[in-house]
Amino acid sequence: MILTITPNPALDVTYDVERVVPHESHRVLSVQELAGGKGINVASVLHLLGQDVVVTGVVGGSTGEQVRADLDRRGIPHRFAQTASQTRRTTTVVSREDGEATAFNEPGWPWPEGAWARLLDHVATMLDELPVRVLVASGSVPPGVPDHAFADLTRVGRDAGVAVIVDASRTALLGALPAAPDVVKPNREELLGVTGVDDPIDGAKMLQELGARHVVVSLGADGIVAVAPSGIVLRARLGERLRGNATGAGDAAVAALASALASGAEWAAGVADAVAWSAAAVLQPTAGLVDPEDIDRLRAAVHVDTWQL
Amino acid sequence: MILTITPNPALDVTYDVERVVPHESHRVLSVQELAGGKGINVASVLHLLGQDVVVTGVVGGSTGEQVRADLDRRGIPHRFAQTASQTRRTTTVVSREDGEATAFNEPGWPWPEGAWARLLDHVATMLDELPVRVLVASGSVPPGVPDHAFADLTRVGRDAGVAVIVDASRTALLGALPAAPDVVKPNREELLGVTGVDDPIDGAKMLQELGARHVVVSLGADGIVAVAPSGIVLRARLGERLRGNATGAGDAAVAALASALASGAEWAAGVADAVAWSAAAVLQPTAGLVDPEDIDRLRAAVHVDTWQL
Repeated sequence: MILTITPNPALDVTYDVERVVPHESHRVLSVQELAGGKGINVASVLHLLGQDVVVTGVVGGSTGEQVRADLDRRGIPHRFAQTASQTRRTTTVVSREDGEATAFNEPGWPWPEGAWARLLDHVATMLDELPVRVLVASGSVPPGVPDHAFADLTRVGRDAGVAVIVDASRTALLGALPAAPDVVKPNREELLGVTGVDDPIDGAKMLQELGARHVVVSLGADGIVAVAPSGIVLRARLGERLRGNATGAGDAAVAALASALASGAEWAAGVADAVAWSAAAVLQPTAGLVDPEDIDRLRAAVHVDTWQL
Repeated sequence: MILTITPNPALDVTYDVERVVPHESHRVLSVQELAGGKGINVASVLHLLGQDVVVTGVVGGSTGEQVRADLDRRGIPHRFAQTASQTRRTTTVVSREDGEATAFNEPGWPWPEGAWARLLDHVATMLDELPVRVLVASGSVPPGVPDHAFADLTRVGRDAGVAVIVDASRTALLGALPAAPDVVKPNREELLGVTGVDDPIDGAKMLQELGARHVVVSLGADGIVAVAPSGIVLRARLGERLRGNATGAGDAAVAALASALASGAEWAAGVADAVAWSAAAVLQPTAGLVDPEDIDRLRAAVHVDTWQL
């Protein structure tokens, strides 16, 4: 079983409009409301591929109820901790004219003193009660949560003997490294943001010096570079160009890595799957979706190069 | 007592951002959620001025609960009919850079068969049980509600012996006229939209030919023109220019007209008040707010001209 943690989930609201024009009033043509947050997208991909997964995090208020209800509708198991604060909302306005998205993301309410410690206890209890093999901690942390949040989660996972994948950016990513997470998966911009280094292998080595074990850098259409603690580098990419929606591609890659760790598959196969699952997500309109048939087809088109640093 | 009906209320969400840029992701800096809809704004103004008012309409779901809770917080009495559908939301994004607003308005769920008849029964029951003297029907009608919606409400009011004010646009306004509402209050654009006539007096006479009794046309900074069934014209305007936010100015004008009808004040005084209340609303950042001290001061600056057509 894989446990995904989204500390700061959201109700993702999507509005269709004809065209986005600043300072105008827009008639919304359709409204879609889905449970959102990177950990939830990871779990959704795993669930669609028939894997045993459960979602956690903290939700509250009526939007929190809508997050739970949407996961129920999609059949994705969840066990959230409850808070008094309303779960945040993100509003994405999609223009029918050009398909482009304009997003407005609520930051979430500041967490009260002690709330983060309660989430750690909640996760530890789940690890105690469920046959979890991999823990995935994804996304942003809410205001008021310490920078070492993902390090805390990593230690809770390690104490329970499970592998830990961290997908975070900025201070949340940096704060995780001293706890030596098994995998971190920045994209190129996130890696540049924390290391100041543009080359993905040089950046990956810097994260390893700060504590990370495997560093997997997603490079969009250029695939993935994974640097192992041994210094072995895997470079996986798709032998064709795809057009589509990159939102959620990183979450699908994380899902593939988690699946490989949970099943004990070879790491190189997991990295190749990460490229195929990612590419399948690009073909879908919404984050968290993949078509298993796309994955089978795309997997055959992934090339992997390996070398030792 | 004044009863205001908002068939299609909303939870009005306001986001502050630095600047609105299409196709970008925006960090929301603050979130405000208020009960919205023209009838609710009218009631809010009346309540702030110490008048006896009650709000009705149809709400549902968690956003409907938030509408009720916000009215409770503001002390505005309400008695809504309940529906299974979620109350719609409007999202207004205000740019801190220039103070300009970009709005995304959900249309609301289509009403099921029979829902409009149930609202009419609900209003008739309220008119039976409460000492209502004026009924105000404001705003848009939800999808699935007939064009004669505001005519139905007008007849329900007339059967109960109360005066009826309709503030609507397009087909909702046109559909109301055969029932001879006591007052309709289009603004210049709404009047042009339904009559094709730019001159407010000519347009007002056309609405009277279609059934309206008093026609009050709000002209923004140019004040108000009111044409009575007798052909007496009142032109009221403020002797000074104001800067501010015109949202809600029309609702404040309707509140003043309702107040005049409820108290039996002279119609000319009501029209002058409509200009003063409207101007006071322009000085506020949000629809539904006025400061009684502004009204006292502005009322002294309103000039009224009268003539017979």
